[in-house]
Amino acid sequence: MNNNDTTVYDIIIVGGGPAGAAAAVYSARKKLKTLLITESFGGQSIVSDDIQNWIGIPHISGFELAQKLEAHVRSYPDVVDVKSPEKVSKITPVTCSEPGRVCDFEVDTDQGSKYIGKTLILTAGARRRKLGVPGEDQFSGKGVAYCSTCDAPLFPGKKVAVVGGGNAGLEAVQDLIPYASEIYLFNNSNQIKGDPATFEEIKKSDKFKGLILNAEILEIIGGKFVSSLKYRDKQTKEEKTTILDGVFIEIGSVPNSEIVKGLVELDQWGQVVIDPRHASTSNPGIFAAGDITNDPYKQNNISAGDAVKAALAAYNYLLQRQKQSPAAESL
Amino acid sequence: MNNNDTTVYDIIIVGGGPAGAAAAVYSARKKLKTLLITESFGGQSIVSDDIQNWIGIPHISGFELAQKLEAHVRSYPDVVDVKSPEKVSKITPVTCSEPGRVCDFEVDTDQGSKYIGKTLILTAGARRRKLGVPGEDQFSGKGVAYCSTCDAPLFPGKKVAVVGGGNAGLEAVQDLIPYASEIYLFNNSNQIKGDPATFEEIKKSDKFKGLILNAEILEIIGGKFVSSLKYRDKQTKEEKTTILDGVFIEIGSVPNSEIVKGLVELDQWGQVVIDPRHASTSNPGIFAAGDITNDPYKQNNISAGDAVKAALAAYNYLLQRQKQSPAAESL
Repeated sequence: MNNNDTTVYDIIIVGGGPAGAAAAVYSARKKLKTLLITESFGGQSIVSDDIQNWIGIPHISGFELAQKLEAHVRSYPDVVDVKSPEKVSKITPVTCSEPGRVCDFEVDTDQGSKYIGKTLILTAGARRRKLGVPGEDQFSGKGVAYCSTCDAPLFPGKKVAVVGGGNAGLEAVQDLIPYASEIYLFNNSNQIKGDPATFEEIKKSDKFKGLILNAEILEIIGGKFVSSLKYRDKQTKEEKTTILDGVFIEIGSVPNSEIVKGLVELDQWGQVVIDPRHASTSNPGIFAAGDITNDPYKQNNISAGDAVKAALAAYNYLLQRQKQSPAAESL
Repeated sequence: MNNNDTTVYDIIIVGGGPAGAAAAVYSARKKLKTLLITESFGGQSIVSDDIQNWIGIPHISGFELAQKLEAHVRSYPDVVDVKSPEKVSKITPVTCSEPGRVCDFEVDTDQGSKYIGKTLILTAGARRRKLGVPGEDQFSGKGVAYCSTCDAPLFPGKKVAVVGGGNAGLEAVQDLIPYASEIYLFNNSNQIKGDPATFEEIKKSDKFKGLILNAEILEIIGGKFVSSLKYRDKQTKEEKTTILDGVFIEIGSVPNSEIVKGLVELDQWGQVVIDPRHASTSNPGIFAAGDITNDPYKQNNISAGDAVKAALAAYNYLLQRQKQSPAAESL
């Protein structure tokens, strides 16, 4: 649908995970004209079978959480418009014609639609970083996994590799210890970056069979399912193949911040830099929360809480803006 | 019960609202030996009949939310001890005997018990400053409200008073404008203290029906619900009664921080000053989240999110401490 809606939204929220949903609910309760654009609801944890740390619910699947978030957002149809599935392709500040008037933002989407918002709340999250080697996509879900919390139980008595020596990799090993029979940790440099204390704990398990340093992963091999992993020792240049049943890839994530490059300050990893007190960014009309930001912990409840801050800070910004240019504004 | 438990807890959490519960769940999932001490679960919103902004649940009573939080905390009985109802009466840093060793904290309670913790997470919340007039407690949740962000939507088409002419009172009027039909602002002196620019904005709404200065509130009157407000004009000494459906009392709140005075930096209102990135305080072993802190917004989901940060930051602190003095520590 090609939409050239002339509504000027008070807030346009980009993303539908816990942060996007929280921002929409608070924006709705302030009666702000709100648009939420997302490819899907639920965020990265939608793939999880059993989330145990969404506060107030001891067990919930990622899919059920996504449904709850979407239902809450859609309970305010008078003030919150939802476009899903729809993907933001471009964000452009609108040239200010009146002197002293604050700029709006034009948001373009993959559906050919254009929307105008006075403020933006960025909650587009992050995506898992991939190895980019042959076999990775082919065996995804057939031995190749990106979420140990979700998929460790699928590898009972299996021989498994974890790729990545940061905390995510170490935590994946810990998640696998109750299930797998043999676990190997592959690291691409000569030293792991994860917490030594965690690594000490891991070494106590007789299921942990070894750390392979300086390993450049070359290929994931298999038939119906993964059967082996080919890598090169970066020091000796020797190529080796390890027979195994599964590969957990834990090499970090990439924030979905490409669309705001140049609009807000990003850190060296491309994360949106926020003031965590108000979830504000370097651009006064843009706020951000969740995995797209430089929050150090990346947890669903943190995303939701920081998004509440973002919505309330955006509301205060809109009140200030209205004071500065009352003729042009109405909330 | 007089308890002189010799357990040294990794984390002692003081408080059982959304922040306390979130800290306990995350502490449990890091397998930290945790003690949560609280007078009750649920926090300040336990009095609410219909919370509409706990993200993921369009409607939940404060009582139900409290039950959910408590159940989640109690789902980790192997690592989380709960003392409730129990009230912390005193917190004392334990004198460090070994050079270079980080101090612990001794926590005394009204039950005559003493507990020792390596870290503290303060989530004891705040209490609303009350008017202290007849009818106030009786009609709490039945027309008397203390949180406009939470409860303004419960007064559609209603005639409502806001008591308090500071910024909180003015913001309550702003929050009510989209919902209520008539709004009156009562102030106990001859001049409001809130931002004049905000007040100018409010006056533009035809729903704002007037400012009553020098008003000493005497009584809140009603049957099942609030029906009127009785006050005295402090200049004329005349007693007056206004018929209305709701009274928002916005005369500030008092953080429950008396027990940590001198231990952590407090701001001019007695709020615990935190770095919102890690929910850390001026004392390296003490973390804080929720309404006891200087977070500017005071919302349940923010409290939960910041408490997750507190628990993860406390975990990192404990790992660092273990590295510094491995002989004395075991996680």
